[in-house]
Amino acid sequence: MSQKPLPGFRDFYPDQFAERAHIFDTWRRVVRRYAFQEYDGPPLEPLELYTQKSGEEIVTQLYNFTDKGDRAVAMRPEMTPTFARMVGAKAQALRKPVRWFAIPQLFRYERTQKGRLREHFQLNVDIVGEADVLADAELLSIAIEIMRAFGLSDRDVRARVSDRRLLNGLLSHLGIAESSWAAVYAVLDKLERQPREVSAEKLAAAGLDANTVDTVLGFGTLDFATVAARYGDAPAVREHVERFRQYLAYLDALGVAAWVQFDLTIVRGLAYYTGIVFELFDNVGEFRAICGGGRYDNLLKSLGGTDLPALGFGMGDVVIGELLRSRGLLHAVPAAPAFWVAQSPDTGDAPQAALRTARALRDADCAVEFTLRSQKLDKQLEAGRKADARAFVIVDPSSAEAPWRVRRSAHDDLVFSSLEALVAWASMPHESSHE
Amino acid sequence: MSQKPLPGFRDFYPDQFAERAHIFDTWRRVVRRYAFQEYDGPPLEPLELYTQKSGEEIVTQLYNFTDKGDRAVAMRPEMTPTFARMVGAKAQALRKPVRWFAIPQLFRYERTQKGRLREHFQLNVDIVGEADVLADAELLSIAIEIMRAFGLSDRDVRARVSDRRLLNGLLSHLGIAESSWAAVYAVLDKLERQPREVSAEKLAAAGLDANTVDTVLGFGTLDFATVAARYGDAPAVREHVERFRQYLAYLDALGVAAWVQFDLTIVRGLAYYTGIVFELFDNVGEFRAICGGGRYDNLLKSLGGTDLPALGFGMGDVVIGELLRSRGLLHAVPAAPAFWVAQSPDTGDAPQAALRTARALRDADCAVEFTLRSQKLDKQLEAGRKADARAFVIVDPSSAEAPWRVRRSAHDDLVFSSLEALVAWASMPHESSHE
Repeated sequence: MSQKPLPGFRDFYPDQFAERAHIFDTWRRVVRRYAFQEYDGPPLEPLELYTQKSGEEIVTQLYNFTDKGDRAVAMRPEMTPTFARMVGAKAQALRKPVRWFAIPQLFRYERTQKGRLREHFQLNVDIVGEADVLADAELLSIAIEIMRAFGLSDRDVRARVSDRRLLNGLLSHLGIAESSWAAVYAVLDKLERQPREVSAEKLAAAGLDANTVDTVLGFGTLDFATVAARYGDAPAVREHVERFRQYLAYLDALGVAAWVQFDLTIVRGLAYYTGIVFELFDNVGEFRAICGGGRYDNLLKSLGGTDLPALGFGMGDVVIGELLRSRGLLHAVPAAPAFWVAQSPDTGDAPQAALRTARALRDADCAVEFTLRSQKLDKQLEAGRKADARAFVIVDPSSAEAPWRVRRSAHDDLVFSSLEALVAWASMPHESSHE
Repeated sequence: MSQKPLPGFRDFYPDQFAERAHIFDTWRRVVRRYAFQEYDGPPLEPLELYTQKSGEEIVTQLYNFTDKGDRAVAMRPEMTPTFARMVGAKAQALRKPVRWFAIPQLFRYERTQKGRLREHFQLNVDIVGEADVLADAELLSIAIEIMRAFGLSDRDVRARVSDRRLLNGLLSHLGIAESSWAAVYAVLDKLERQPREVSAEKLAAAGLDANTVDTVLGFGTLDFATVAARYGDAPAVREHVERFRQYLAYLDALGVAAWVQFDLTIVRGLAYYTGIVFELFDNVGEFRAICGGGRYDNLLKSLGGTDLPALGFGMGDVVIGELLRSRGLLHAVPAAPAFWVAQSPDTGDAPQAALRTARALRDADCAVEFTLRSQKLDKQLEAGRKADARAFVIVDPSSAEAPWRVRRSAHDDLVFSSLEALVAWASMPHESSHE
């Protein structure tokens, strides 16, 4: 029997599962503060759901096949098409704005390399039915509050934010023909990673004159105040600057402005986003983007659904896990038993009294374990120590008065003369073993 | 765009997701009381992982394909092979007994018919490394305590239990050749569903004489006391009766004996189980088995892993969901906002004060929503009512003294003069909106 999972797939032993659960729990805790509701869809969908949005090229990256009913199907590489399908099917009946989240496992057949998996889990948070920029601020604040809940600060992570409409307004104001915008986007997207001459050549090839090339190459260092001062009165730009100013004011009221950095090089998927877009990065630049998202007002309609404005982000479990681990912020471990129940005297008798005790403690929602065979007391206690039990309950059915002793350390025995008293004590909040 | 999932696959809208979450949460809550640790494995595995255990026939039921690296792979139809692989890979290092659980989604290409899906979620609970029958009692008590946690009683559900070793002892005692046992098992498995004459013919064809055929056909109505009285002294049976008696005593000490019914017609997978086996059924006989499991001491070794005794059960989300729904015990709904924050006066001003209030309440872990655009107060409140908000917070930044009013019903306004006071009140347990 092979002892390994497929390349790019992960086994989650309890140690790894505890880390994953910490990430999922933190995601859920924050998103629920924002009153979002969780949904899920199938991990296998018709192939066309994905080719319709992303074109046939995506098939090379998919786990796709023909099922036994001759359907072309694919394991989901992203959640948005499923989300769009589900919202579309009930668009009339759903309360707007729709505020939904999901934590799907996603699959891509990529070349496996360091840190590149073929599956990951991704928090998806989406709002449908609200065009106002306040929705954009609400959305980004969720991603940032998640960082805060993980123990990260604005010294660790920044949110780089652009606005597709503002950028279009700038290009328009600079006299760049709309047919060249895609080329400009591509250059901006690579501005940090590609030599300046290469970028300049590409812009020139797209028809920009030398002055405009210089201006565009300077976009990477423009802050919002400079854009507002320099271009804020231009007719093609004005309303977009005003909207973005409003967005920043909302982010400030929501308490996350310090994390946000205006950055016109944040482009993201060309065919997809229509407004404000953002990505979260660690400040050291050590990892890939932690999170990315933005406004995609035309997507639901283009997928044949209803025409509703929408925005959302995705955050994978892998990059955030690496970042938290590197900062010493991922120390989740599986829960140990709250109580290890043992039975004395040292006779190896059938442990009925221990079982009744365990049952009563479990009824009070305590995590309880005991030796799964009759054993001498020292063996029972040794097993409990190996399990890292937080406390021992030693029951002695031969004692008439005080058969239950609770031992939390060598010098700390509590004695109970009834099971009810023991359970009442174990149920007290400060002794609680609730998870 | 197709608005439907693939046949046999489910969309989980928030309403359905809340029901699924109630089932998962109940599973986790009970299993954690037993100090089990959660794990997970890949939903896609090498095909041979499944054919090795179940033979080539299983392929007709699988979502299997060749991936882009020419590997024969399959979406997991069950968790046990992955569990065996994971335990096998670290058998030396793991503390024994291993007490693990998982809630994988499983996939089978079955003919879709009423109530038959092609995916479901299944709680898997397994113990590895303990041969004693106390482990069998512990395992069954988990399945039964889950029923209790769902609000079901021993009037709703019974656990039908047999012991493969005891049954073998009986067949041996009756002089039935070991080569005929498989045929006897097959008849017992169908005893309830197949005409008595058919069963009798099959047993005769397997070489049983008329007397023995009658005896075996009577197995379906034998209780344990009768078996013990009638066969308990037979050398081939004695130790198995004793063990089973001990098992029942343990179940009694664990508080679940009333749910348990001895039933020699519970057979389950032939090549798999080696000891006590069980299935949970609703008492009306309305649904398929809720849960099934037992001891499979040889499986880990036969899959090329380590030779460790093991036992476990699986419980799907579909049958238990149908049963709970039919009994009125599945009424989970998505959480509504604890607070809807609105801003007055009725000016439609930018809602900075509302945003700051929302942020402070969210910091205190309350679920908070507000209108995602500037709106008049009555529109804001109407939106909150549509969202079923449990309470309204109306902030009036033009008021110097008491800008925060909390309204839980028409005649119940609380007034706070500082945000800190509001948050302190909202954080009190009786007002808590923690999920």
